[in-house]
Amino acid sequence: MTRLWNEPADFADEMIDGFVAANGRYVRRVTGGVVRSTVVPEGQVAVVVGGGSGHYPAFGGLVGQGLAHGAAMGNLFASPSTQQVHSVARAAEAGGGVFFSYGNYAGDVLNFDAAQDRLLAEGIAAATVTVTDDVKSAPIGEKHRRRGIAGDLTVFRAAAAAAERGADLEGVTAIARKANERTRSFGVAFTGCTLPGAEKPLFTVPEGRMAVGLGIHGEPGIDEVAIPTADELAGLLVSTLLDPAELPEGVDSARGARVIPILNGLGSLKYEEMFVVYRRVAQLLETAGVVVVDPHVGEFCTSFDMAGTSLTLYWIDDELEALWETPVDTPAYRRGSVVAAERVTDAVSAADATADAEAEIPASDDASRTAAATVLAAVAAIAAVVDEHVDELGRIDAVAGDGDHGIGMQRGSHAALAAATAALEAGAGAGTTLTRAADAWADKAGGTSGALWGVILRAVARELGDTGSPAGADVAAGVAAGSAGVMAYGKAEPGDKTLVDALVPFSAALTRGIDSGSSLRSAWAEAAEAATVAARDTADLLPRMGRARTHGEHSIGTPDPGAVSLALIATVLGSVLADRP
Amino acid sequence: MTRLWNEPADFADEMIDGFVAANGRYVRRVTGGVVRSTVVPEGQVAVVVGGGSGHYPAFGGLVGQGLAHGAAMGNLFASPSTQQVHSVARAAEAGGGVFFSYGNYAGDVLNFDAAQDRLLAEGIAAATVTVTDDVKSAPIGEKHRRRGIAGDLTVFRAAAAAAERGADLEGVTAIARKANERTRSFGVAFTGCTLPGAEKPLFTVPEGRMAVGLGIHGEPGIDEVAIPTADELAGLLVSTLLDPAELPEGVDSARGARVIPILNGLGSLKYEEMFVVYRRVAQLLETAGVVVVDPHVGEFCTSFDMAGTSLTLYWIDDELEALWETPVDTPAYRRGSVVAAERVTDAVSAADATADAEAEIPASDDASRTAAATVLAAVAAIAAVVDEHVDELGRIDAVAGDGDHGIGMQRGSHAALAAATAALEAGAGAGTTLTRAADAWADKAGGTSGALWGVILRAVARELGDTGSPAGADVAAGVAAGSAGVMAYGKAEPGDKTLVDALVPFSAALTRGIDSGSSLRSAWAEAAEAATVAARDTADLLPRMGRARTHGEHSIGTPDPGAVSLALIATVLGSVLADRP
Repeated sequence: MTRLWNEPADFADEMIDGFVAANGRYVRRVTGGVVRSTVVPEGQVAVVVGGGSGHYPAFGGLVGQGLAHGAAMGNLFASPSTQQVHSVARAAEAGGGVFFSYGNYAGDVLNFDAAQDRLLAEGIAAATVTVTDDVKSAPIGEKHRRRGIAGDLTVFRAAAAAAERGADLEGVTAIARKANERTRSFGVAFTGCTLPGAEKPLFTVPEGRMAVGLGIHGEPGIDEVAIPTADELAGLLVSTLLDPAELPEGVDSARGARVIPILNGLGSLKYEEMFVVYRRVAQLLETAGVVVVDPHVGEFCTSFDMAGTSLTLYWIDDELEALWETPVDTPAYRRGSVVAAERVTDAVSAADATADAEAEIPASDDASRTAAATVLAAVAAIAAVVDEHVDELGRIDAVAGDGDHGIGMQRGSHAALAAATAALEAGAGAGTTLTRAADAWADKAGGTSGALWGVILRAVARELGDTGSPAGADVAAGVAAGSAGVMAYGKAEPGDKTLVDALVPFSAALTRGIDSGSSLRSAWAEAAEAATVAARDTADLLPRMGRARTHGEHSIGTPDPGAVSLALIATVLGSVLADRP
Repeated sequence: MTRLWNEPADFADEMIDGFVAANGRYVRRVTGGVVRSTVVPEGQVAVVVGGGSGHYPAFGGLVGQGLAHGAAMGNLFASPSTQQVHSVARAAEAGGGVFFSYGNYAGDVLNFDAAQDRLLAEGIAAATVTVTDDVKSAPIGEKHRRRGIAGDLTVFRAAAAAAERGADLEGVTAIARKANERTRSFGVAFTGCTLPGAEKPLFTVPEGRMAVGLGIHGEPGIDEVAIPTADELAGLLVSTLLDPAELPEGVDSARGARVIPILNGLGSLKYEEMFVVYRRVAQLLETAGVVVVDPHVGEFCTSFDMAGTSLTLYWIDDELEALWETPVDTPAYRRGSVVAAERVTDAVSAADATADAEAEIPASDDASRTAAATVLAAVAAIAAVVDEHVDELGRIDAVAGDGDHGIGMQRGSHAALAAATAALEAGAGAGTTLTRAADAWADKAGGTSGALWGVILRAVARELGDTGSPAGADVAAGVAAGSAGVMAYGKAEPGDKTLVDALVPFSAALTRGIDSGSSLRSAWAEAAEAATVAARDTADLLPRMGRARTHGEHSIGTPDPGAVSLALIATVLGSVLADRP
């Protein structure tokens, strides 16, 4: 469990501040994370990694010569927001374009992809390879859907070493793809972790039991067994990864193949235990005829203080081995002799500070400012209903996901409320007030839900505009646009057990009601009812394959947390509308 | 808690095997621990560190260029035996003598000192500086009695860097002494750890509470408080270490002084929490006018998976700073650019393998071989009584010590039994049988009690000899010599709440009985009674100051575990003698 913090809400920010204070010779702080504090040669591809916090050394601890150029650092176990990723990428970029790599989780994919789109729109070359090494998170035939765990290190290293050797963006991407194709990991866990300020662990494993294939945020594994001996665990890990079906393309047989094994600790399973396990891993690999190169036993991607471990096999060829053996010098991962680079001057660092300057409030009229008050009331009601249900949403999410849905919604809705309040006070109309709320939500919440709520609210805001009193049809059109945006952006369809399952019928009912001449108030009430029914029905659905969630039957009987949030919010907004003219 | 092992008794050995399997580019296995696998320049002083296992990266993880030349690795939380330390030192020695450094714990001091004596007797120069950085383990006026915790790193580094720069043994010792004088640490803990196979943690801290000044083996702290905020903890750590009384000689004022802060995690308090704490530590040091140089936040000396942290302040001067900034390349601590050294050849490594060849059994006569059977029965009875009381001894020891007394006695007495059995089968007389038992006990048990029981049994063995039937007077003289040896070796007096409190009255009563014409059987029975009373009376004593134990009243009311073991063993041996002619 977590014991030391000041305010839980400040934890991630204070953690980054302390990390930077301790590691100034490697990193400097920028909006959204850190970049190297050393000078990067002009034209070098910048490798930008990232993800939620709580996985140290991933991701900030891996920034430095020979590894990442920057890391976007989200809140605990929550994806960094699009703006954070974009800001880190801009600060890291050195004229050679940006190469993104990170573990394949829905929230990270959404936000990194959006940041990449923004870079491309700005004329900066960018490409991405997500890490998909966790063999238990999807079948081998759907490797692209697998989660990324400790295999991050091999892909990041390959990409960074190639970049330092002068490869262009295309070359870096090709190398990273090859490294990812040749990396397989398999993990087990014994306990969950408790985030700062949380009452209970994200999940628990019964005493004396071991969860097999459990994800690094507590995503359900595929099995639960009695804790084996160290040797038995080594046998399970090695035999699973040496399954011929898991041998990467280009590796015809384990016998004679060269492998870098990485035995990674998740936090409180300690080094001594890992060495006992590794002893047997080494014996088994040798027996199988695998040539072991440069084994790693330690903590490379943790899950706070979760007790667990994973074995990664990185099947190298000559090219990947040569890249692996190049020197690295970062806060948490060092090897070989690095030619020390110059520190960047303060002048460069200071340039980042002004990046966040406030944009001006667009002109608005009285009617729109009146509507903005309703927007503010709506956002306040959303924050209140989320507060009320935060624990329940977390619990539902923990069944198939990482249990942070409630916390993420809370962080996002309160940031939205603060931004909407400030906008209204500054004289903003309804559209700008809601846009500010949407941006703040997406930026502060991070994760999947943060990005999607940003999309929904921004779409509605566009229809509201900053002049005149918005009509019911404007609201319905905005919701419809938001619904379409979420499907496109989140790559989800109805039936995938996501937010979309409630949003689509909600939008349809709202449009139908308005089109048939109902008032916004009564159309909304009917639509909210439809959303509630639809959210409840998601309990019967299988969760969507891949990415953040494991497939399987774990969440049958539990509704989707995103759909439930949407239904709760739709319902409470019905009350807000009922109170207004 | 510990979850992964095979046989608890094999844990430490298998851990070392796995550690070496994973780190062959840095270390190679020798009897008793590891030494560098790279070539050391002829004539360089060899820095040999060590202690119990369970503190990784301490101690094996700190062997490599720029740091230790070898590490003696004892059992979990138990000092390495004299033979282990000696073996590692011989393997590490490169013609420049051996410099020992380790945390100041009674068992380590006993065994390293004995190994040093053995080296000196062999004509190898050797010197020692124990690390005494824990400010809460004794008052500043008795700094030499303080325990060593995370400050190990600064002293080891200073010594090793000086050795690599060509300093001779005297020079290395002087530098290490200065580094130790300028190192202060202060720690807190939130939970204990459970050793492999143990039913319960070594100690517990109540939920929501924090033990202040707790030692890294669970030695009692000075206070217990509610868990503070991260900032409050930082305040407590910094203000304690900046107390003017704690400023080292030569540092007139904290303002303007240069300090390397090391925030060390004990195992399951994780990096993110430490960074939040460090953020405030950095602010407070800056406010106090301290110049922070090269901060370290991470795990440098753990206590298995104990949850806790300590802050070390290393008050450097120009000389120490220059040494600190030299490159290092070890399994767990790396910095800067090391000029890679050649690997040693297998021929060199193989030389160690023959070091343990069996010595010949000296000649004996029938009478002594008959007495040897009684010796074997006595050792068997000792092992049995220790088995029976192992949990109770552990519990008593946990009150003021690290709770491993029962386990250590068990390991030692069973090793003694195996050795005595083998010796008898090989035709050894009573003296050799008991000597073999004594050596095995000391070697396999490690720790304080292992070394002391080795001294006692060896002294008795010398009187028994390998010819003739030993008389009661021989036994009494042997016990008296053992008693004197323990006092000299363990530097303890009656009243210090140690084994000596039972051993001295036991020996006195035995000698008195024999001198007054009693049979060995009846003199022994009276002596055993005296030992039992004396052991019980140790409950009224304050524990001995310094070294492994904290001062204070924690163990008032609890007898000394060493004295209790002695009384138990004396009593059971009375029964063995009663059964014999």
